[in-house]
Amino acid sequence: MKIVIINKLLKDTHKEQIRKTAALVGGSLFFAESENDIPQEWADCEIIYGFGMGNAKVNKNLKWLAVPSAGVDYLMKPGCFANEECLVTNSSGAYGVTIAEHIIAVSLMMMRKLDYSYSESIKGSWSSPQPQKSLKDCRILVLGTGDIGCCFARRAKAFEPESITGVSRSGYCSDPSFDSMKKVSELDSLLPSADLLVMSLPDTPETRDILSRERLALLPEGAYIVNVGRGSAIDEDALCESLNNGRLGGAALDVFKTEPLPSDSRLWNTKNLLITPHVAGNLTLEHTLNVNVDMFCKNLINYAKGMPLNNLIDRNKGY
Amino acid sequence: MKIVIINKLLKDTHKEQIRKTAALVGGSLFFAESENDIPQEWADCEIIYGFGMGNAKVNKNLKWLAVPSAGVDYLMKPGCFANEECLVTNSSGAYGVTIAEHIIAVSLMMMRKLDYSYSESIKGSWSSPQPQKSLKDCRILVLGTGDIGCCFARRAKAFEPESITGVSRSGYCSDPSFDSMKKVSELDSLLPSADLLVMSLPDTPETRDILSRERLALLPEGAYIVNVGRGSAIDEDALCESLNNGRLGGAALDVFKTEPLPSDSRLWNTKNLLITPHVAGNLTLEHTLNVNVDMFCKNLINYAKGMPLNNLIDRNKGY
Repeated sequence: MKIVIINKLLKDTHKEQIRKTAALVGGSLFFAESENDIPQEWADCEIIYGFGMGNAKVNKNLKWLAVPSAGVDYLMKPGCFANEECLVTNSSGAYGVTIAEHIIAVSLMMMRKLDYSYSESIKGSWSSPQPQKSLKDCRILVLGTGDIGCCFARRAKAFEPESITGVSRSGYCSDPSFDSMKKVSELDSLLPSADLLVMSLPDTPETRDILSRERLALLPEGAYIVNVGRGSAIDEDALCESLNNGRLGGAALDVFKTEPLPSDSRLWNTKNLLITPHVAGNLTLEHTLNVNVDMFCKNLINYAKGMPLNNLIDRNKGY
Repeated sequence: MKIVIINKLLKDTHKEQIRKTAALVGGSLFFAESENDIPQEWADCEIIYGFGMGNAKVNKNLKWLAVPSAGVDYLMKPGCFANEECLVTNSSGAYGVTIAEHIIAVSLMMMRKLDYSYSESIKGSWSSPQPQKSLKDCRILVLGTGDIGCCFARRAKAFEPESITGVSRSGYCSDPSFDSMKKVSELDSLLPSADLLVMSLPDTPETRDILSRERLALLPEGAYIVNVGRGSAIDEDALCESLNNGRLGGAALDVFKTEPLPSDSRLWNTKNLLITPHVAGNLTLEHTLNVNVDMFCKNLINYAKGMPLNNLIDRNKGY
């Protein structure tokens, strides 16, 4: 069983953990820093853990592609797999902690005008206090209550918000941090009382432009938006307008319709918009990488035993 | 009983609340936006709620000065009061929520390199991911476990740190968010395992330069420091050096030995130093102002009844 691992951030401890697991299941291993490093004799591998999209397109022998990302939208187009039966797993569950910290950080930065303080301070200017808002007594709406939404809600709870409402397809989530859970179909009636709207949705046909111009207009004046899911979920033009005309308090986007964000995008110059370059869930955080590797190793055992894989993607649904 | 209120941020609801309380105790009220607005006939008032330091110097009739700040160091010099028996109360307890949010915000900004992302983004540049640190599994040391330290610890707990250790004079704090409580005398042995050092101390002879050059050197490599108490607590020169030579991961200072920070201060150009202009506890946050006014009104009842005042300052100790 040929297994190729593609990840330049892995430490020796991670490699050792993967080696031990591979030995347990009789797999042979090749570690690559990028896809270009895969030698000819490994091009027909059975398993790839990493971003092996180039190999997947041509390798008819590939039976399982385990990607270290949570989103898998980039694998859902036709022609992505030479072997149409190839299993795909994502690493949903590894990013909750780091992305939840990002959401709290950018929410507070916006509410406390720390972006303003910071840009003044790097000019060497002692600025005056700006009007601040708070997570205390805030009405928080979380669109998408998977691992990320739950990890965020658990942290947000400690800030004593007025309410945390979760929204999901099923309207169900077992995490007690949500004061109430609602179905996506009720979204229009929930937006008017959302002081902070947190979006952590995958890219699927149902989530595309879910925050439309009409829905943006339903948010109360001064509301804040944080998007850490996929950029496709927001009508970016309408968002720009609602920020520039001052109706919204601010927005923090880590994801965009086009990434990297083109240098001529109007988003760069939009008022009260905090732009981060898709870093909320990057793998530089040790905890994230540890969990990611753990998940792959557990799944490798499942694979070898012929048991169902965790985080298996339904390629028809796209998640 | 003449009562002067000095606070330009008060809303009508706050004024109404103060009016009702004053009526209850037979007090007469004057609302001023600043000390300069106090007319001659109110200069001999019995009570001031606000920054009435100018009046306190000359008004022999002043019996109680209620300041809206938590720190009172500026009132401890000789000559501050024409009436040496004048009672002083602070508003400790009103700032925990807002300052705790500030501490979480700047800690995450530093750990997640959001200062870097932000300064790149305002230049219109999509930067690459930076190595991130996390509050998850972080060893947090909180120097000063009053209202601010406790409010911070309660929020920090939700981020699943490895440990939160509190340090106070007594070594005692009833808040269960601290995994352990230690005495200030043990500080030297605690610093080597502090990944994040949070300082919320008043300015007193004991706290001046408590984070000396020697103690800074005890912190582990890559440690972060947040100071929201008083600038006098840190040897600023030694801090600059530890940041510029890369030994420390970063520092976020909201308070300084001299405020506003002089334009020629070397702190402005120190590496990995986040400067905010003493805004962590400003009164623009509605919640802070509400609690502040509540506290004064309760104390006004106590005063009228001849009962002990809450938050009474021992002017010998300075807190």
